[in-house]
Amino acid sequence: MKAINLEEKYQAFEEKWSPHLIAELNGQQVLLAKVEGDFVWHAHEEEDELFHVIKGKLTIDFRDKSVELLPGELLVVPKGVEHRPRAEEETWIMLFEPLGIKHTGGRTTAITKSHYPRI
Amino acid sequence: MKAINLEEKYQAFEEKWSPHLIAELNGQQVLLAKVEGDFVWHAHEEEDELFHVIKGKLTIDFRDKSVELLPGELLVVPKGVEHRPRAEEETWIMLFEPLGIKHTGGRTTAITKSHYPRI
Repeated sequence: MKAINLEEKYQAFEEKWSPHLIAELNGQQVLLAKVEGDFVWHAHEEEDELFHVIKGKLTIDFRDKSVELLPGELLVVPKGVEHRPRAEEETWIMLFEPLGIKHTGGRTTAITKSHYPRI
Repeated sequence: MKAINLEEKYQAFEEKWSPHLIAELNGQQVLLAKVEGDFVWHAHEEEDELFHVIKGKLTIDFRDKSVELLPGELLVVPKGVEHRPRAEEETWIMLFEPLGIKHTGGRTTAITKSHYPRI
């Protein structure tokens, strides 16, 4: 049991749109990702998903609006809601969601990861 | 669905050791608390608990050691593990844990809150 330093964890990987696992609790997981550019439109049928921006700026598009998140801001995307995260510059996000969730939701694409490395 | 700004939420209350609810997802909750001084020794028999320091410094005492958390650092306390959070100065923390958890665990004390106000 030791402190998890977010800055150090982000230094451990470079790949964009590739979540890395830093903690598990109560059947949930805490993931870090570096993102830049547009992600794919997707939804998670069974899981709510929390986005927390640590650095940069994340825009989450919905079919009827967009929400911008700056560092120190977070948003819960309810299950079933289609969304597309995107970032104009390199942005660091922290995600809180159930274990076993796929980051591309019901879609399997070229960027879909089947495993989130633990760092 | 709108951005939750942590700084704004912390401005909404002053009371120490009194968690306030900012989000719910997947049967879990996100709580903010301002803390200063020593909390009580306690354990949560069924729930893991994530502490994330936003401002200040949090020390979590365990029976065999202590862990210090600075801003940008987090720690998961596994269920069943006795712990005592404390802070020498006013410290802002964010907690992730299951809905319905009591912040004083298996103990009911004068500071135990039966309800976490939503802000």
